[in-house]
Amino acid sequence: MRALVYEGEVRLKDIPVPKRAPGEALIKVLAAGICNTDLELRRGYMGYRGVQGHEFVGIVEEGRNSFLVGKRVVGEINCPCHQCHYCRMEMPQHCLNRTVLGIQGRQGAFAEYLTLPEENLHLAPAGVRDDVAVFTEPLAAAFRITEQVVITNSDRVIVLGDGKLGQLIAQVLWLQTKNLVCVGKHRWKLTMLEELGIKTVQADQPLERGADVVVDATGNGQGIERAIELVRPEGTIVMKTTVAHPTALELSLPVVNEITFVGSRCGPFRPAIEALSLGNVEVRPMISEAYDLSMAETAMRRAEDPGVMKILLHM
Amino acid sequence: MRALVYEGEVRLKDIPVPKRAPGEALIKVLAAGICNTDLELRRGYMGYRGVQGHEFVGIVEEGRNSFLVGKRVVGEINCPCHQCHYCRMEMPQHCLNRTVLGIQGRQGAFAEYLTLPEENLHLAPAGVRDDVAVFTEPLAAAFRITEQVVITNSDRVIVLGDGKLGQLIAQVLWLQTKNLVCVGKHRWKLTMLEELGIKTVQADQPLERGADVVVDATGNGQGIERAIELVRPEGTIVMKTTVAHPTALELSLPVVNEITFVGSRCGPFRPAIEALSLGNVEVRPMISEAYDLSMAETAMRRAEDPGVMKILLHM
Repeated sequence: MRALVYEGEVRLKDIPVPKRAPGEALIKVLAAGICNTDLELRRGYMGYRGVQGHEFVGIVEEGRNSFLVGKRVVGEINCPCHQCHYCRMEMPQHCLNRTVLGIQGRQGAFAEYLTLPEENLHLAPAGVRDDVAVFTEPLAAAFRITEQVVITNSDRVIVLGDGKLGQLIAQVLWLQTKNLVCVGKHRWKLTMLEELGIKTVQADQPLERGADVVVDATGNGQGIERAIELVRPEGTIVMKTTVAHPTALELSLPVVNEITFVGSRCGPFRPAIEALSLGNVEVRPMISEAYDLSMAETAMRRAEDPGVMKILLHM
Repeated sequence: MRALVYEGEVRLKDIPVPKRAPGEALIKVLAAGICNTDLELRRGYMGYRGVQGHEFVGIVEEGRNSFLVGKRVVGEINCPCHQCHYCRMEMPQHCLNRTVLGIQGRQGAFAEYLTLPEENLHLAPAGVRDDVAVFTEPLAAAFRITEQVVITNSDRVIVLGDGKLGQLIAQVLWLQTKNLVCVGKHRWKLTMLEELGIKTVQADQPLERGADVVVDATGNGQGIERAIELVRPEGTIVMKTTVAHPTALELSLPVVNEITFVGSRCGPFRPAIEALSLGNVEVRPMISEAYDLSMAETAMRRAEDPGVMKILLHM
């Protein structure tokens, strides 16, 4: 099969179709999305080499569960061992021996086929198009925040970052509270949110401090500093940014103000699928370009361009 | 009255007895403790100048509440305005206009007299000696953790730091769980905890990772890095260290592991007084030396010595 393989550089190669292990399904990929994590992996993050890609929709070709075969599915990316301490503590997403689709020890979705445990799969509703269904995984990461922090409609929320993840987070938290503002550097990206009715502020403009919750989805080390300035005493900062290098932080203010910081990673698929199916989140304007898998090398280069948002691959 | 005044350097001076404002009591100080914050203030922290000292026990000499007059009391150090946004949100300890005894806008306890709002005062039980009662304020700061983080007897807790605050925290959290270890650099300080039955580990020795809660009370910037290594995924790090300079932190691990950080400052006096009164916390071994107020300049110099723990002043 054709697959985009990262081995120091990304190359479209012909490699064997992956073999499904017991409990796994073989999935023919229909479409996949390029994530900033894919770009970071190429800068050495996680030290991963192999087929990249973890946002996808596909058709189950083979599996033990005959109900699933032939169905269109999306899939959770963390594959736990079910035996380690954290698996036994019901924290499979933090399994010590986990593989992660296209990120850690498991060939990813920029290929014609992938394998995943059947338990990781969710049906893609008929009304959700392929190019929308690929957003399930990053949208689930946005919904993760609602599992970690109680946000009510009286809370004031600031989302820092107008990129792909920031936009999804702003849309998800907008479902919880209308007292929300998204802060970003790019006028055209902020306009996309404003067209949905979400308030935005340009990053260089003044902003009222004292927010109950601030989410750092800037993707850079300065985001958390800004979040510390903006959050109220005893407020919460959600950390979504993963940068490979250390960040210099003045920590006495967060101690004196008794701020809570919460790291936040992958999230629940069910509310993400529901939101896409019900139209509560609008992702189509975020799709900048789509390429055939044969053009995957070009697509990866395009994804580096700050002038684009989501780049999709069709297999 | 005599008072130890910081104005670029600390000097014992003769200054007027402070005047009590409406709602305040005038308190004759019996004894006061020197805290690391007092030393940091002299390095420029908070930009405070004036009489230092915020750990004290004293006798109410004047006040509107006749019940209090003549009573021996300890006092909470944050004096809120009762009018700002955070006061109205029931967070007086984060009042925007607060004064803080001996730290911000209010003359402190290294003096013969101080004033505090009557509402800040708590009776010192008869069975609690002066040199024990002065520990109420730092002990309350240790108890603050139990208001912020649920710790049950099945939780594994690591306290980083064997200094004055680390010891109080270890003793307080030991009341919650016996699955606790205090990590420190000083054999003699760790021995003090071991004599109370609390497990300790020398900082350069290996330590099992995966703790549910790690408290950083090291007082230096490296503590939080160690805490990140030691805490389990979805675990909690309590931040007690305030250092004036920025700390370089690798933040992608705490995001991936979804760690929670909680800043923690001043705490509730009631459980602290109870613990001192009931003997659930043992502070007397922590008293290294005691000086008369006339020797306060010497006492402050002695407090800088890493070979001492608590230095007391008697007025």
